[in-house]
Amino acid sequence: VTQSVHVADLVRQAREGRARAVARLVSLVEDASPVLREVSAELAPLTGRAHVIGITGPPGVGKSTTTSAVIAALRRRGSRVGVLAVDPSSPFTGGALLGDRIRMQDHALDAGVFIRSMATRGRLGGVAWATPQAVRVLDGVGFDVVLVETVGVGQSEVEIAGLADVTVVLLAPGMGDGVQAAKAGILEIGDLFVVNKADREGAQATVRDLRHMISLGFPREARTPEEPARWRPPVLTTVALTGEGVDELLDTLDRHEQWAEGSGELRRRRLRRAEREIEAIAMTALRERMGDLTDGPRLGELAAAVVDRRLDPYGAADKMLDALTSQSTPSA
Amino acid sequence: VTQSVHVADLVRQAREGRARAVARLVSLVEDASPVLREVSAELAPLTGRAHVIGITGPPGVGKSTTTSAVIAALRRRGSRVGVLAVDPSSPFTGGALLGDRIRMQDHALDAGVFIRSMATRGRLGGVAWATPQAVRVLDGVGFDVVLVETVGVGQSEVEIAGLADVTVVLLAPGMGDGVQAAKAGILEIGDLFVVNKADREGAQATVRDLRHMISLGFPREARTPEEPARWRPPVLTTVALTGEGVDELLDTLDRHEQWAEGSGELRRRRLRRAEREIEAIAMTALRERMGDLTDGPRLGELAAAVVDRRLDPYGAADKMLDALTSQSTPSA
Repeated sequence: VTQSVHVADLVRQAREGRARAVARLVSLVEDASPVLREVSAELAPLTGRAHVIGITGPPGVGKSTTTSAVIAALRRRGSRVGVLAVDPSSPFTGGALLGDRIRMQDHALDAGVFIRSMATRGRLGGVAWATPQAVRVLDGVGFDVVLVETVGVGQSEVEIAGLADVTVVLLAPGMGDGVQAAKAGILEIGDLFVVNKADREGAQATVRDLRHMISLGFPREARTPEEPARWRPPVLTTVALTGEGVDELLDTLDRHEQWAEGSGELRRRRLRRAEREIEAIAMTALRERMGDLTDGPRLGELAAAVVDRRLDPYGAADKMLDALTSQSTPSA
Repeated sequence: VTQSVHVADLVRQAREGRARAVARLVSLVEDASPVLREVSAELAPLTGRAHVIGITGPPGVGKSTTTSAVIAALRRRGSRVGVLAVDPSSPFTGGALLGDRIRMQDHALDAGVFIRSMATRGRLGGVAWATPQAVRVLDGVGFDVVLVETVGVGQSEVEIAGLADVTVVLLAPGMGDGVQAAKAGILEIGDLFVVNKADREGAQATVRDLRHMISLGFPREARTPEEPARWRPPVLTTVALTGEGVDELLDTLDRHEQWAEGSGELRRRRLRRAEREIEAIAMTALRERMGDLTDGPRLGELAAAVVDRRLDPYGAADKMLDALTSQSTPSA
């Protein structure tokens, strides 16, 4: 009962905009805390409002600077913004990321902005599993926009960014040409491509290159009248440091949101995100149940039956699974 | 029914000593084949006879040469020998290992010897999970001795070797001194220590060093009359290339077997091995069930309920686990 009151308090404080309460809720997700079940029940009726924007791209393209500029622009439009900076490849927040974070400090005193770096903390499944739940928390406590920035270009980064309502792929002149992007698997997940540092040499070549790569996915011949309207990813340019192009980026995000709602794509993505979330919770619960069983006396008895040839290991595993399935409530 | 007949045939052929049938049974284990359940049921009444010897140690100490010399000595004593060479760190059998394997070819034409390299083949849990089952197969088809040789010095190697009835830790002069062995965690699992390449300089120093390290675990003060007889790991020397010391090693292994049977230690180890095996089978079955569910229509329905706020993700995970647990037979 004490814990229930506590969770309700925490959720209320978080909804009132208290950053510490929000941070504690996100920590509960990272730690796969047992009270998450309660948090989730409290928040469930309040979710589904936030627009979830994924931002990804190779290192060095200016992801944090762009995120910071996007936050500023969103704030000018009156939105409350929650930011999750996710680094799946590292158990800690690395040095480079930390340096980038400093720019985000611009928003440190703004109560309408919550910024949090998420790391794996050695948990199985790691941030790829925790991120959808953390998004739900920020959504539920009332942020209008949730930005999910992923660092790196591995499979998990692509996967996490792909779970957003819309995914922005950031590139920079020269380093992030279309072929490289295709190799990294980020060409398929991008709803918008942004060539940042557009004041640098080679920016227009990168834009052309990207537009060409994208056009390969939209052959004229394949279009038929029956085919539903597809979203053709636009390629924008920004200079995040000066804020140039950021308002156009926001306008394009609005345009995508309208298209995604009308076409049913938004719902499809939210279904996929919910699926990942349910799976993550179920797997965590199963692992814990399994741990309870293997630590308990039951496994020892079954092992004795196997050693004494009264049971073969498959029969023993059956009995173990039966014991597992007779527990009706997941532990988290 | 066809498959049942097939499995019974395979087991019969393997018991008749046909190497190809034995190899196919071990492959079934590596592939986590669904017919393993049948194989296991066929073999269960026949298991528990083989003496399972683990051999481990750092690279370069002459593990394969020693294993080969041990095989030859066991054959002279009339034992049929099954060998599993396990490399948990690599998905394939690497070059160095392959070079070593050539020495084992001495036994290639001997029907009383079966040698098999096991690799992970990308399976979750890998060889650490498959090895106890492969040991059971070799035991069941009638090998008197099963040698489990592990390559490398990581945690999994130590773990695998520690699941044997007796564990031989191989070291060589200079490279494998006691402190290093302690660091690698192999000091605790060794029932016998063998300093191979004993004709080389520094061999006696390594022996002394090891005996000293071992003595630290046997303080005189701690001994009381009530304390059950403990096995104090002896330190032997061999020159595996010439076969020197190998008969003494076998005699010591016999002595350990007698002690382990009398003291109950043998049973304790077999119980532990059976526990690992049951866990591995149960986890594999759970993963498969989970895969069936996440691929099926059920998860989609639950995700829709979450997106529509009719259910929170924890409630959805509960329902998913209920569906999981209503299946009564593990799929493998």
